[in-house]
Amino acid sequence: MSENNRVWRLRRRPVGDITDDVLSFENEPVPQPGDGECLFRLKYLSLDPTNRIWMSDMPQYMPPVELNDPMRGVVCGEVIQSNSPAFKQGDIVSGIGHWADYQVGTPQTLNVLGDTGPVPLVDAFGTFAVVGPTAYFGLLDIGRPKEGETVVVSGAAGAVGSIVGQIAKIKGCRVVGIAGSDEKCAWIRNDLGFDAAVNYKTADLGPALDESCPNGIDVYFDNVGGPILEACLQRMNLHGRIPTCGLISQYNASEPVPGPSSYPMIVMHRLRVEGFVVLDYAERFPEAIGALAGWMAEGRIQVRQDVVDGLENALDAVKKLFDGSNSGKLIVRVSD
Amino acid sequence: MSENNRVWRLRRRPVGDITDDVLSFENEPVPQPGDGECLFRLKYLSLDPTNRIWMSDMPQYMPPVELNDPMRGVVCGEVIQSNSPAFKQGDIVSGIGHWADYQVGTPQTLNVLGDTGPVPLVDAFGTFAVVGPTAYFGLLDIGRPKEGETVVVSGAAGAVGSIVGQIAKIKGCRVVGIAGSDEKCAWIRNDLGFDAAVNYKTADLGPALDESCPNGIDVYFDNVGGPILEACLQRMNLHGRIPTCGLISQYNASEPVPGPSSYPMIVMHRLRVEGFVVLDYAERFPEAIGALAGWMAEGRIQVRQDVVDGLENALDAVKKLFDGSNSGKLIVRVSD
Repeated sequence: MSENNRVWRLRRRPVGDITDDVLSFENEPVPQPGDGECLFRLKYLSLDPTNRIWMSDMPQYMPPVELNDPMRGVVCGEVIQSNSPAFKQGDIVSGIGHWADYQVGTPQTLNVLGDTGPVPLVDAFGTFAVVGPTAYFGLLDIGRPKEGETVVVSGAAGAVGSIVGQIAKIKGCRVVGIAGSDEKCAWIRNDLGFDAAVNYKTADLGPALDESCPNGIDVYFDNVGGPILEACLQRMNLHGRIPTCGLISQYNASEPVPGPSSYPMIVMHRLRVEGFVVLDYAERFPEAIGALAGWMAEGRIQVRQDVVDGLENALDAVKKLFDGSNSGKLIVRVSD
Repeated sequence: MSENNRVWRLRRRPVGDITDDVLSFENEPVPQPGDGECLFRLKYLSLDPTNRIWMSDMPQYMPPVELNDPMRGVVCGEVIQSNSPAFKQGDIVSGIGHWADYQVGTPQTLNVLGDTGPVPLVDAFGTFAVVGPTAYFGLLDIGRPKEGETVVVSGAAGAVGSIVGQIAKIKGCRVVGIAGSDEKCAWIRNDLGFDAAVNYKTADLGPALDESCPNGIDVYFDNVGGPILEACLQRMNLHGRIPTCGLISQYNASEPVPGPSSYPMIVMHRLRVEGFVVLDYAERFPEAIGALAGWMAEGRIQVRQDVVDGLENALDAVKKLFDGSNSGKLIVRVSD
């Protein structure tokens, strides 16, 4: 185990956009697994908006990454050595780990991935590790759409949003996606079957939503917050639901961002605004993965991975989540 | 039926505070009840924060009052003449009506009040018509407090807030009230049994909440919005609930008011923010009234009415809701 280990470490908390000095890329010894731990080699690293949250010390749903610690991430790797009965050499594992070639894990942080059948590992990891269950539980458990209702999703060409919209179609809803380019809008409308798509960068958002949601909005799946949340709040039907998955428009803000001025709609139209974090659903992941795998096998859900090669490119790649330049699930391929 | 009828009519929509030119006080003929209607004489008029909403044309949960129409209100009166089998002369009725001595109603707008037992009519109307069910359903159905949790309520010396806190005490919660004077704080702490009270006009709100809520906040019953909502949001525990009953701090605003900048806490702490309007619970009112009447008879819930005499004083009186100068349920006594 003489191989060198490359590790991204958090050096300062970002103020505004993620900058190059936030992380440093180090060469370090490969760690030794302790009792009950395994050593695994990173194959894929998932890049997610929540990475920006973990880098900061804003109030959040897990402890922030400590300064100078390895950067936290959702990982997929192969077990090289195990001191735990839960893992054996060659197991493919996924869970919460670090941005590092080699790292140790425990049964508390890692699951062994079963046979992914005809689904390639990168798709299984990309869809089943985080974003698929996020879309599934956020839409169905929190949003509770009924057949014939109108579901609007922001970040609609993103990893979570694209699956939310496809599940909502399966459930018989009218589905409107909000995305940031004509190419993304064409993809969700033509390939994924959304009923309408709005390019928030070029459209006049209010009138565009009025046109694409003639019966108002029953469920707004919020990935972004900001002006899109504001426009949707104003169009929510009585007893509408707003599953709040993320507020990516705000994560890079360096000052407190005012909340939506249409907040009183929560009373006037008796809305339910509910935040969730997919980790709370860990015990029910098999339900989501089973449903998603079935829909994928039937061709009713398509997924798109945005794969970047090389751990050394992770910092540049994660920035893409915040400037709207990626679509589909952003993943770094570290080794095959 | 030659008696003169005094009627408050909406003449302009308020911009900012309610001003004297918003309503006019007219002398008009007594109306004649049509088929299926009754004529009743107003005994008590309930004044509520929602009156300000109905005067405006902001998005709201019922149609706004049309300009030049009689002002809408929650009323209690005695039937004088009936063309409906649902009412007979002498019945005491309550429901949605107008700010007028004489008015007509239907079974769709009025209920006959049963025997109020030892509870004086003014207390029964003041507590059971709107505010008691609002407190009951908002806290128990939306807030769902568990024994041992911390419940914070704003407008705590108000008609709804004072009952919310007392129900939460009955349910075994730690209860903290936020009110706007030392006298109000003393009343809710000493007479109503709240565990702590914060005078938001003199206290440093954040530290005062930290001190009175050492285990954080599980349920924040929001009557006011604004900076108090902001301070509570920042202290919500994981999976906290914010039943959103009203946002009185904003109703008099003439410009859009930014929402809370701690809105991301909804995701980070997986909060549920849910608006409600008590009218949605009309079918379950007997449940709430039964429970409240029982607790009142046992001395476990105290109510305080703030009774103003004379329909001619209704416009001056309703302003008291917005400057914090009343406590308890604001009612105009029109006739006995």
